[in-house]
Amino acid sequence: MKKDFDIVIFGGTGDLALRKLLPSLYRANYQGEFEASARIFVTTRKVEEVEQFDSIIENALRKYLAADELNEDRKESFLKLLHPVLLDAVDRSKGWADFEEQFNGYECKTRVFYLAVMPSIFGPCCENLSHHNLITPNSRVVVEKPIGYDFESAEKINETIALYFQEEQIYRIDHYLGKETVQNLLALRFGNFLFENIWDAKSIDHVQISISEVVGLEGRAGFYENTGAMRDMVQNHLLQLLCLIAMESPNKLQAEDIRVEKIKVLRALKALDKVQIDRWTVAGQYAGGEIDGQSVDSYLNDLANDDASQSESSHVSRTETFVAMKTFIDNWRWSGVPFYLRTGKRLKKRRAEIIVTFKNVSHDIYAPAGQSLIPNRLIIQLQPEEKIQLQLMAKSLGEEREKLKPIKLNLNLNQENSSKPSSDYQRLLLNAIKGDSTLFIHRDEVKAAWQFIDPILAHWNSSQRIPENYASGSWGPEKANGLFEDKAQYWIDTDKE
Amino acid sequence: MKKDFDIVIFGGTGDLALRKLLPSLYRANYQGEFEASARIFVTTRKVEEVEQFDSIIENALRKYLAADELNEDRKESFLKLLHPVLLDAVDRSKGWADFEEQFNGYECKTRVFYLAVMPSIFGPCCENLSHHNLITPNSRVVVEKPIGYDFESAEKINETIALYFQEEQIYRIDHYLGKETVQNLLALRFGNFLFENIWDAKSIDHVQISISEVVGLEGRAGFYENTGAMRDMVQNHLLQLLCLIAMESPNKLQAEDIRVEKIKVLRALKALDKVQIDRWTVAGQYAGGEIDGQSVDSYLNDLANDDASQSESSHVSRTETFVAMKTFIDNWRWSGVPFYLRTGKRLKKRRAEIIVTFKNVSHDIYAPAGQSLIPNRLIIQLQPEEKIQLQLMAKSLGEEREKLKPIKLNLNLNQENSSKPSSDYQRLLLNAIKGDSTLFIHRDEVKAAWQFIDPILAHWNSSQRIPENYASGSWGPEKANGLFEDKAQYWIDTDKE
Repeated sequence: MKKDFDIVIFGGTGDLALRKLLPSLYRANYQGEFEASARIFVTTRKVEEVEQFDSIIENALRKYLAADELNEDRKESFLKLLHPVLLDAVDRSKGWADFEEQFNGYECKTRVFYLAVMPSIFGPCCENLSHHNLITPNSRVVVEKPIGYDFESAEKINETIALYFQEEQIYRIDHYLGKETVQNLLALRFGNFLFENIWDAKSIDHVQISISEVVGLEGRAGFYENTGAMRDMVQNHLLQLLCLIAMESPNKLQAEDIRVEKIKVLRALKALDKVQIDRWTVAGQYAGGEIDGQSVDSYLNDLANDDASQSESSHVSRTETFVAMKTFIDNWRWSGVPFYLRTGKRLKKRRAEIIVTFKNVSHDIYAPAGQSLIPNRLIIQLQPEEKIQLQLMAKSLGEEREKLKPIKLNLNLNQENSSKPSSDYQRLLLNAIKGDSTLFIHRDEVKAAWQFIDPILAHWNSSQRIPENYASGSWGPEKANGLFEDKAQYWIDTDKE
Repeated sequence: MKKDFDIVIFGGTGDLALRKLLPSLYRANYQGEFEASARIFVTTRKVEEVEQFDSIIENALRKYLAADELNEDRKESFLKLLHPVLLDAVDRSKGWADFEEQFNGYECKTRVFYLAVMPSIFGPCCENLSHHNLITPNSRVVVEKPIGYDFESAEKINETIALYFQEEQIYRIDHYLGKETVQNLLALRFGNFLFENIWDAKSIDHVQISISEVVGLEGRAGFYENTGAMRDMVQNHLLQLLCLIAMESPNKLQAEDIRVEKIKVLRALKALDKVQIDRWTVAGQYAGGEIDGQSVDSYLNDLANDDASQSESSHVSRTETFVAMKTFIDNWRWSGVPFYLRTGKRLKKRRAEIIVTFKNVSHDIYAPAGQSLIPNRLIIQLQPEEKIQLQLMAKSLGEEREKLKPIKLNLNLNQENSSKPSSDYQRLLLNAIKGDSTLFIHRDEVKAAWQFIDPILAHWNSSQRIPENYASGSWGPEKANGLFEDKAQYWIDTDKE
């Protein structure tokens, strides 16, 4: 079904817009998703960007799309949809009146306002949209993390947006949820009997959710020093992935039903007391080291070398660039099953993975032959590749009957089966345009996640906890290996097993 | 571990020996399995076969092995192990004295007597072995189906062999059990938690075991007309496969423990009363038809055209070339789960498959989107390819979230991972040489299988049941589709789903 809509990208020439949003829209357009009457407004505060608009766009497309996706016809068709808008999101005197003009007579059309700007601008921008009567019942607003710094600040941002938009109109993006594999995870869980009866504490030994990066600060030093890995990654991405793994089956495959189940998980997260925080959470900060043969600097040096934060004293920083933690979900399904979360910068490999490890067989008839069985695992990899694998034990071909070997079954439909390249942002943008909010985050989820995280950060802060040092290019501080319940549990390197 | 042994193949220049046994031994030898002191005796009653021995063997190897397996070194090394023996298995005056000579001083060596001869010769041959003191404690005897025509005749054969060999020394071959895939099925069932808790009536909807052939009588008309599909295929191969699917987990991965469990299954097979036999068994006989574009004759014409049976009146035959049946296993694990068995000649495709179909998910959240979920299946294919596949539902790549599609996961280690070609007979021969009887059939299994089959044949006979006609190249008589419990069950064509 072709879609007709207006989308307004505030911060339209910023990094996110040029890198992700506009290439995604370009692709969706050449794949025939849009009516020719669709309009894409791209705002900027700079006159010269309006003047050089086409070439800015073309550069971005060339940079962020595959060469074979680009051609003149597609480009021309896309540029016809685009409208540069000279406008200051905050200052109502700059461009808003003209902007309002452009919407006269389009009241019934779907409108998507994408706020690709800093959270501090959300409020004024929404207020201006409201003041100019641009918010219709068919309007949606899309926002991204960081939504707040803690429970209170997140609530403030959400309250501000809520002054102008109904909760159903607000689409909070977590791009991990736009991944094909995450959607396939739902299909797998709820479309297959095989997983129905083994998705609980009786059958699952433990779950690992791990997002490791090799990059360091990437020029975001000022932001990162005030944020840290817990807020930047755990509170949103890791907890969202945990929800999809742990949620009960929804009554229906619809946004509201799924949200209800996700919120139940977040609210069931075991609130950690101080002793548990000390034992079950590990914060780390990267020292210098080597990644892929390249020597890299420590966090403190990266911080000192960053323009934006040079002025501040950065000899000491308690900011964590790594978090590992153990948590539990206090409900019938998951009672006693540890969920291990891990994320960090400057780690050995770029990986985003969920690994569900099942229990061992009740009675191992292969043990007398000296065979040790590796437990069955479901591996959901989001980065660097998107794939889902089921790891089973099978007989080694041509070997004795009792020689088993782990094999990995690839559960994804072959990439080659699809002629359409796609991406997480493309999928989420199309969903927002369509009005499908299943893969977006509800205000109550944001709240519940902060309610779980806040006490940990508070205790870290009040106990003046110093993050453990770890060498860049390692898997983080040694202490992270101490979280596990028994010796059959360890951080799994799926390349090795 | 290299093996030293003597093997004697009675009927050593017969079809089975030349087609399967000798090529398997040749391969095992070049793969380094044998000591140079191993001896392979090949008996024949014909002087000229002894004279032309090497060329008979070379012809067979050329015919039944892949070209790249053959070379002069391998051939030479193999021929050194071979010893032609001029001997009449039945007549003690012909060759046995010389044959005994050859074994002087080899009492401690493993001896394998392979009776690749008709069952009527088993008795005299064993008696001669005994008379010449050739049966040592280290000796084993290998026999093949047909073991009897019914319970009584099978017992008679087994009793005869038992006069000379202990049951532990008797290796009854069912070559389906030598397939890599059958061995992998055991690994899968007992090495993976995933299958531990869903391998019962609570989780499995039904099981299909199907061996279909495209061939007709293949010159065995005389034998087949007196045997039929029930005795030729169901009593042995199909019931053996059923055992491996249905058996409880053995205490140990050892022959005795596995046999105990298989016998328990055979003894738990629901004994069918006459009404059930009429409703739950279908016999068929092929009419003319077309297979792979070639027109083929009816069973009756094939029979009439056969030299051996031409003398008999073959205008009417009640011999079944097709059997389909429903059966149940009366124990806690399988109560109420139908096992559908099917086998036949001149069917559409050559296939040997076990298909385990799991139940549907309890609550289908995909149904409102018009999506119908295909239940999860485990597909164990023995012919034409050996493979195990797990069929799950997954999201179609690039499609909407609610569009699912069945995908088949290949559970076998890739064939390419193995540099060693192998075959069922090779595996079973090596096991017999090694003394591993796990994949052979115990006398009690033969008994129990006949005890299940005999009443069915008796009722067919007493009710003068006429087999249903079916066109060659079809999937058998229409009536076979009437066995199923509900409309979600049907004979599955794994090429199509």
